[in-house]
Amino acid sequence: MKAVRVHRYGEDPHIDEVPEPKITGPWDVIVDVGAAGLCRTDLHVIEGQWDAIQHPQLPYILGHENAGWVREVGSAVSNVAPGDTVIMHPLVTCGLCSACREGQDSHCENALFPGLNTDGGMAEQLKTNARAVVKLDPSLRPADIAALADAGLTAYNAVRKAAPLLYPGTQAVAIGAGGLGHIGVQSLKALTAAAITVIDTSEAALELASGLGADTVLRSPDTAAVREATDGGAHVVFDFVGEHGTEAQGLEMLRNRGSYYSIGYGGEVRIPTIELISREISVVGNLVGTYQDLVELMTLTAQGDITLHTTAYDLDDAVQAMHDLDAGKLTGRGILIPPAGGRST
Amino acid sequence: MKAVRVHRYGEDPHIDEVPEPKITGPWDVIVDVGAAGLCRTDLHVIEGQWDAIQHPQLPYILGHENAGWVREVGSAVSNVAPGDTVIMHPLVTCGLCSACREGQDSHCENALFPGLNTDGGMAEQLKTNARAVVKLDPSLRPADIAALADAGLTAYNAVRKAAPLLYPGTQAVAIGAGGLGHIGVQSLKALTAAAITVIDTSEAALELASGLGADTVLRSPDTAAVREATDGGAHVVFDFVGEHGTEAQGLEMLRNRGSYYSIGYGGEVRIPTIELISREISVVGNLVGTYQDLVELMTLTAQGDITLHTTAYDLDDAVQAMHDLDAGKLTGRGILIPPAGGRST
Amino acid sequence: MKAVRVHRYGEDPHIDEVPEPKITGPWDVIVDVGAAGLCRTDLHVIEGQWDAIQHPQLPYILGHENAGWVREVGSAVSNVAPGDTVIMHPLVTCGLCSACREGQDSHCENALFPGLNTDGGMAEQLKTNARAVVKLDPSLRPADIAALADAGLTAYNAVRKAAPLLYPGTQAVAIGAGGLGHIGVQSLKALTAAAITVIDTSEAALELASGLGADTVLRSPDTAAVREATDGGAHVVFDFVGEHGTEAQGLEMLRNRGSYYSIGYGGEVRIPTIELISREISVVGNLVGTYQDLVELMTLTAQGDITLHTTAYDLDDAVQAMHDLDAGKLTGRGILIPPAGGRST
Amino acid sequence: MKAVRVHRYGEDPHIDEVPEPKITGPWDVIVDVGAAGLCRTDLHVIEGQWDAIQHPQLPYILGHENAGWVREVGSAVSNVAPGDTVIMHPLVTCGLCSACREGQDSHCENALFPGLNTDGGMAEQLKTNARAVVKLDPSLRPADIAALADAGLTAYNAVRKAAPLLYPGTQAVAIGAGGLGHIGVQSLKALTAAAITVIDTSEAALELASGLGADTVLRSPDTAAVREATDGGAHVVFDFVGEHGTEAQGLEMLRNRGSYYSIGYGGEVRIPTIELISREISVVGNLVGTYQDLVELMTLTAQGDITLHTTAYDLDDAVQAMHDLDAGKLTGRGILIPPAGGRST
Repeated sequence: MKAVRVHRYGEDPHIDEVPEPKITGPWDVIVDVGAAGLCRTDLHVIEGQWDAIQHPQLPYILGHENAGWVREVGSAVSNVAPGDTVIMHPLVTCGLCSACREGQDSHCENALFPGLNTDGGMAEQLKTNARAVVKLDPSLRPADIAALADAGLTAYNAVRKAAPLLYPGTQAVAIGAGGLGHIGVQSLKALTAAAITVIDTSEAALELASGLGADTVLRSPDTAAVREATDGGAHVVFDFVGEHGTEAQGLEMLRNRGSYYSIGYGGEVRIPTIELISREISVVGNLVGTYQDLVELMTLTAQGDITLHTTAYDLDDAVQAMHDLDAGKLTGRGILIPPAGGRST
Repeated sequence: MKAVRVHRYGEDPHIDEVPEPKITGPWDVIVDVGAAGLCRTDLHVIEGQWDAIQHPQLPYILGHENAGWVREVGSAVSNVAPGDTVIMHPLVTCGLCSACREGQDSHCENALFPGLNTDGGMAEQLKTNARAVVKLDPSLRPADIAALADAGLTAYNAVRKAAPLLYPGTQAVAIGAGGLGHIGVQSLKALTAAAITVIDTSEAALELASGLGADTVLRSPDTAAVREATDGGAHVVFDFVGEHGTEAQGLEMLRNRGSYYSIGYGGEVRIPTIELISREISVVGNLVGTYQDLVELMTLTAQGDITLHTTAYDLDDAVQAMHDLDAGKLTGRGILIPPAGGRST
Repeated sequence: MKAVRVHRYGEDPHIDEVPEPKITGPWDVIVDVGAAGLCRTDLHVIEGQWDAIQHPQLPYILGHENAGWVREVGSAVSNVAPGDTVIMHPLVTCGLCSACREGQDSHCENALFPGLNTDGGMAEQLKTNARAVVKLDPSLRPADIAALADAGLTAYNAVRKAAPLLYPGTQAVAIGAGGLGHIGVQSLKALTAAAITVIDTSEAALELASGLGADTVLRSPDTAAVREATDGGAHVVFDFVGEHGTEAQGLEMLRNRGSYYSIGYGGEVRIPTIELISREISVVGNLVGTYQDLVELMTLTAQGDITLHTTAYDLDDAVQAMHDLDAGKLTGRGILIPPAGGRST
Repeated sequence: MKAVRVHRYGEDPHIDEVPEPKITGPWDVIVDVGAAGLCRTDLHVIEGQWDAIQHPQLPYILGHENAGWVREVGSAVSNVAPGDTVIMHPLVTCGLCSACREGQDSHCENALFPGLNTDGGMAEQLKTNARAVVKLDPSLRPADIAALADAGLTAYNAVRKAAPLLYPGTQAVAIGAGGLGHIGVQSLKALTAAAITVIDTSEAALELASGLGADTVLRSPDTAAVREATDGGAHVVFDFVGEHGTEAQGLEMLRNRGSYYSIGYGGEVRIPTIELISREISVVGNLVGTYQDLVELMTLTAQGDITLHTTAYDLDDAVQAMHDLDAGKLTGRGILIPPAGGRST
């Protein structure tokens, strides 16, 4: 089968012909990939930034946002069958550790991470396990939803955790309305009745945010303007950027007892303890969501509450897509479609 | 009546003869002070550090940790009557703003703060209001509990907020077992079944912590040792110090999904956003507790679950007590007793 | 001023000329009534059903769902001023008891209940207190919102309490889409992403529910049909009827771990303990909401998320309105408008 | 191996010689039974009461409260190894259904229930799976803890769910201080600072409850006495009996906003909807706890917070033990010990 593989860090990946994966364990699931999302993290992988953390064995297949149709299942798999439309949670988890037993499987102590530390989904087939696959309504098309598997799920997790704080009359602020942020705004509309203020430096992103239901959009992270727009400061700030100063700005936008939800990364949070305490504010880190979060996100998508903005490429054009992403020429999320990925279901 | 007043910043306060307070509003309450806690914040007030934040009019009476007996009440007061033993919440709140209506009165938008921005309790009488007084079992002695009004309530609030995270099998770490920390340890024992590790540089503080139920005590904030003692890191770290490096050490002591509760202050929290996110940890600021928290703390005290370690001085010796505190000669919390404060009840 | 007063149980109330209320306490507020909701409870009051519970002194003024404009305030009132548009929480609360201090003021131990145990709002003026008045955006018209003060607030409280159970993919069922139910459906849409099934015997009520966003409407409480429509049973059933068998039907509609929220009354819940336990289900009683719930409900109303369906009558025609209500001729909530109640603001 | 099997309902079970279980699936675990708890449910099984619900194929082995040492594991088992001391969650769960994924495995849609619908643990060996075994500190002895697997876990689950309601100053009432109740009282002491009132008709049970930390014990379920002892009614009533009138008495013991937790069964809850609503009370059903609840309960046991009162019998004397239980001659929980069950570890 065809696959997009990293051979050496600092070089473009290759489109290789590789053997198809085989079922070897009782919980294995092999999926015909319908679509694989392309993410800035893939560029960082190619640059070698993730080698020290994930140390995959080269060459290996990229792709950590995957959806498709089940091809074959192991002997113990009971939740999906060949032909089912599925999206894959990014982690292949064990089901036995404490985190898994509590339903917090995104912190599984024994997880594999296809596309990061083992073969991923930029290929015709992907091997995963029964605990990673979410069975979908057959009307959902992999190309429309694949990028929700990681980017969307990360934005959703943050909003889901914050939702109890966002009762009617509260103020939510989203910094950044790009790939994650525009899912965040839709998640806020679906889960809360909070007023939503969105801050972005791109006029196009702000227009998108307005169309998705933001109450106020601001082109500059001027904290005084935000405090005014939010009637005294935000109850929750979602920082989908997390670098270049948004960390400090986000904290300043909070009202007393407010919470800063950190999603984007690259920068550093710095705050005097006297300010943490006297304002009684919180700083909350957010990783990708759990399997059940992905199930919920798919429900919202099937209901029409969440829509992803995408640009599709053939899998063969993966390198071009990566160059476009790097050059800022790619609007929406980039999606790679394998040869049979567009099959009608 | 006698009162300890600040006349000029940078000078010792004076023991003055001043007029007794008068009832002027329907919700006023005047209390015969039984005991006033002495706190490091009082030294900072005298140095002038709080002037810019609270800007009281000089001269004014110190004392923000007060307990005693009701002397006189305004026309609308129905919850206490003359003779009742009471402890005072540090804030005199309005009962009408959003924070008050939600039960979050420690964030009242219209609060007075006796001892900080208006006359406090280092005197024979204190004027407060009906919403600040907690009626106590007459068996409780003001001298034994006054310092719970602020220092104790702050430690309790942090533990109370964290308690849902500290189910059986979890690991709590307390940095600092002094005035706040030793109340924190007792609160943890009363509210949770978590394992408790206490870190302090003072052997005496560690002995006290052991006696109060800490499972492990460590003399140095060696994060590797703490991670080992906590079987992989803390679920919650309570930082009762908040300066001189405990901020960074506290964060390192956390396991994934852990929370750093900030209580002591003076330093700065610094953390890369990638670490917040990849470990999905939280940083939580903690102010003083609410009125209802003080009611709960008094219940625990009456039940014998919380005991405060104190050294008593006559109100006339307030300046000596402050010098002792400053010189590190005061063990336990210092408590000032007005002439009639020791009356039998 | 004019007022609708009960003189004797079992007789129509009279439109009387009575003295205007006077400010007597520091927290008193007198309101020019803009509109008073008419409720089936008023009919029960007239029949004498509430005498044993509330034992008001006859004659007294009806009306427990009131909105208008502040006329005069007591000396300690700081949250509203003459001219402000306000809606009144049905209870006049103390601010000092445990329930009030926790923000659970709908259980205030010292509350008055105008219209039930003291003079209510079917009059030109109403006397209440500072803790009962919610200041509104002046664009809100009393006639449009008065009935949210009690009926709407009761429906909202139930939905607000259940919202954490109703994450995406869950199934909510509302039994009854009348005065309370149609606010419940709108509250569900505003606060949750749950699928909503509505059951009513009236075709008009079902049409209204569909228009407000119900996903499925069913004319008969056939529990098998409900279990199918909800893919195995409801996560939460809201019973806005609570008599004539809906109690048993509602319990049967639940899936395992589901919750039956009781709002309407008149009947009896009966359930074998083996069923409670083996299905691990809950039965939850719901009273009117808190002051903060009313603030939230007004925010949703101002945002256009909640709309009340009403029929207006002049205050002079109150008896006619009551007869219409009793005869089933009144569509939507009946609203009584005093002579100056329609003033432009 | 030896096993206690039901051959025909209404007859004593037989001590049979049966083949040892074999590993057949990747997640299977075979355990050398150290102890099997004897429970009133076993008597009901023998009488045939559970046949309609669980319809096991006769003959089969009794025993649903089991602990021992791992003997052999399937190919995919990574969480335990031969020789480990283990206690078994009563359900053998799938890890794939919604309930399992949320951490609510006690509602697994595909569970087996050894001792009820398949071979249980009153034998020398038991076959279970990797998701049912909790690895224990080797210092814990199966004979001391086996009965915590079901009876103890049921009591713990109810207390764990109610714990957030039981902050300091609240009132907990336990009806029944027998097998479940005495674990409930210890769980309350470990997890909350609530005042505890225990009601039982047996003087011995009340003495036990006092020794375990109950603040008040009452020999009769006189609701007026309970309301007085609880200063106006309970915040939470735990009904470990659930029949013979305790259902109605328990509801009467509640204060407004209180919750009745149903654990014991046999009777019926009946309550007018007006009472549910006007008092805003809840009725909460409680099944056995989750796997993670069992992990927590074992932590508490290892810490010495929970102790079970037992009487041991040789497995060969199982029928005698059942007769003793039926005749009321068995004090504490009956525990059956297979020939090698007392081995030193």
